[in-house]
Amino acid sequence: MKVGIVGVGCSKFGARDCTLQELAFEAVSEALKDADLAQEDIDISVVGCVGTRSYELMPAVVVNEYCGFSGKGPLRVEAACATGSAAVYSAFSSIKAGIAEIAIAIGVEKMTEVDTATSAAIGGRAGNYLWEHHFYGTTFPAYYAMHATAHMAKFGTTEKQMALVAVKAHRNAAKNPKAHFQKEISVEEVLGSRVITYPLKLYDCSPISDGASAAILASEKAVKEHGMDAVWIESIGFSSDTSNMTMRESFVGLRASRLAAEMAYKGAKIIDPLNSLDFATVHDCFTIAEIMAYEDLGFCKKGKGGEFIEKGESDFGGKMPVNTFGGLKAKGHPLAATGIAMVYEIVKQLREEAGRLQVDLKHYRALSHNVGGTGHFAWVFIFGR
Amino acid sequence: MKVGIVGVGCSKFGARDCTLQELAFEAVSEALKDADLAQEDIDISVVGCVGTRSYELMPAVVVNEYCGFSGKGPLRVEAACATGSAAVYSAFSSIKAGIAEIAIAIGVEKMTEVDTATSAAIGGRAGNYLWEHHFYGTTFPAYYAMHATAHMAKFGTTEKQMALVAVKAHRNAAKNPKAHFQKEISVEEVLGSRVITYPLKLYDCSPISDGASAAILASEKAVKEHGMDAVWIESIGFSSDTSNMTMRESFVGLRASRLAAEMAYKGAKIIDPLNSLDFATVHDCFTIAEIMAYEDLGFCKKGKGGEFIEKGESDFGGKMPVNTFGGLKAKGHPLAATGIAMVYEIVKQLREEAGRLQVDLKHYRALSHNVGGTGHFAWVFIFGR
Repeated sequence: MKVGIVGVGCSKFGARDCTLQELAFEAVSEALKDADLAQEDIDISVVGCVGTRSYELMPAVVVNEYCGFSGKGPLRVEAACATGSAAVYSAFSSIKAGIAEIAIAIGVEKMTEVDTATSAAIGGRAGNYLWEHHFYGTTFPAYYAMHATAHMAKFGTTEKQMALVAVKAHRNAAKNPKAHFQKEISVEEVLGSRVITYPLKLYDCSPISDGASAAILASEKAVKEHGMDAVWIESIGFSSDTSNMTMRESFVGLRASRLAAEMAYKGAKIIDPLNSLDFATVHDCFTIAEIMAYEDLGFCKKGKGGEFIEKGESDFGGKMPVNTFGGLKAKGHPLAATGIAMVYEIVKQLREEAGRLQVDLKHYRALSHNVGGTGHFAWVFIFGR
Repeated sequence: MKVGIVGVGCSKFGARDCTLQELAFEAVSEALKDADLAQEDIDISVVGCVGTRSYELMPAVVVNEYCGFSGKGPLRVEAACATGSAAVYSAFSSIKAGIAEIAIAIGVEKMTEVDTATSAAIGGRAGNYLWEHHFYGTTFPAYYAMHATAHMAKFGTTEKQMALVAVKAHRNAAKNPKAHFQKEISVEEVLGSRVITYPLKLYDCSPISDGASAAILASEKAVKEHGMDAVWIESIGFSSDTSNMTMRESFVGLRASRLAAEMAYKGAKIIDPLNSLDFATVHDCFTIAEIMAYEDLGFCKKGKGGEFIEKGESDFGGKMPVNTFGGLKAKGHPLAATGIAMVYEIVKQLREEAGRLQVDLKHYRALSHNVGGTGHFAWVFIFGR
């Protein structure tokens, strides 16, 4: 039995002056309208929210109540920055299990309720708290800086190649009305921006954004009954890894991403992603993360990610257009909203509704890749229409 | 396709001098041994943890790593005090969806890392933060005190009837080696204990406990292949409700409990629970909560819960033995561990391994009822063997 996405919504990302639940409703109302469904058509609502930066300790309750899903929202899911994908998984498995016919996955994060320093400290606690954050003060830019220096040392990846990821992201985001940043930047601006943790500079990092996204999933039966237009979930891959960086096999990639991709490709019977998928959305919380993703997802060989961006292979017209919506880097990264925002962009693309950001479609298939922490969690989905 | 519980584990509940992950491993290792399985047999691990009282902000990662499930633990679930049931649901739906053959649900909570006053304040934030906790300072004993006074005013329920729930709980817990409290108490002791929020006294309240529990679920196919002994999950009911107490229809019961029970009974084709089930575990976070549960679950008419306990109907030999393991009240209530600890006790009973606490079995069917907040979330499961 197939499960499809029949409606998507996404709030404007950025510093938003509204409550968590108001933000969620912005995405939910768009998704309901998109699917031409009402709250009473939904059997179960799964709220994804990391929530460590906002007032509400039980975000699922207030979000479901405000969005009209009281009685239908029995749980919240969390998988750090991959929370949105975990929510889609939970909605998907509820339908596939025959428990629901139509389900909604909501991802919402209000990050600007605390200041940047507090946010960074909270982020650091999301790794291995005791050994890495408490004793060494590691924050997320520091974690990804370790990946970047390892990649530079082993493969000769350059700061300029990383900067190109940011430049592409901003160029695309400038055409995306939902994006946090709407301004193009140059390689020189990235390289000249202040150092956060060497070699990562300000423009190598995704911003702290508020945002919400929602996806409505339906069984094949419900799709037919309601005459809805579905983008099908062909397969789901997931993995997780140790929280202790000293236990990782290497820093030049994320094992969890690789394993999740393997599982998703196997499920969708994909051997060569470049000749099976039209485009991909990947987890570019830092520019180095996108370069590692090219490699971990098999778009190029390990170590060749820097070249891949430099040759324009991840741009429009390249071998695998990546993050045509602006990515986490420039559209924004409101933790739990990110995974479902990827689904939003994929559905728009596969329906050929992406306007100025539309990619050419041949296979009508695409991939989303969503990472929690530094590969503590990883989810890969394959979609087809 | 049926899904069964093939292994259960539960840590000793109480104030525990160990880490979150060590606590989880105590339950996980018992469950693996019980099922005669190893970590490599598990396809997916779902960690339930509310986590607001312990250091780790991403508990699923450290718990999965320590328990040997790295690579298999892609998400955490949360549903306040009903988190354990949400974790079982997630494991159940993963199997039922055909994504996993064998799954583990882990519930773990380290509550004693903060002091009691802080814990109460955090608990208060789990209701409707802005209107109820921030402005009025409502905490969980205060919420349930409102339920208790409403029940007393409308139905003449007495403080003594509530005390009887605590006396029964302590009597049972005294025979349960996993219980936080191992000491019997008298009605006079309950009535004479200091008032927390009128009419609830110290002994009307469940304690603040550390604890972990784990349940291994398997598909019918895996049960046969491994020759395992399964307690089947016959049906699952869930609901949720508004976080705003002023929006509730009444305070004498929990609408979410009633709706979750209806859904579970319908799924298991149960019309008369008293003549279909041998016993039940219900969410007695406060004594009034157990009395309301008798009514909301249909063990007696609305308003007759006080009489039900007074006549001994919820004791061994009564119409529906309830919380024979000591309940949340005396075994303890480590939030996320609670729902799976109920599953632990039910499996032990249905396998006739409950020792001195064994109930007489006729139908070989039982119910678990797990509430988050004051009915913000509710889960009801029907089990059969």
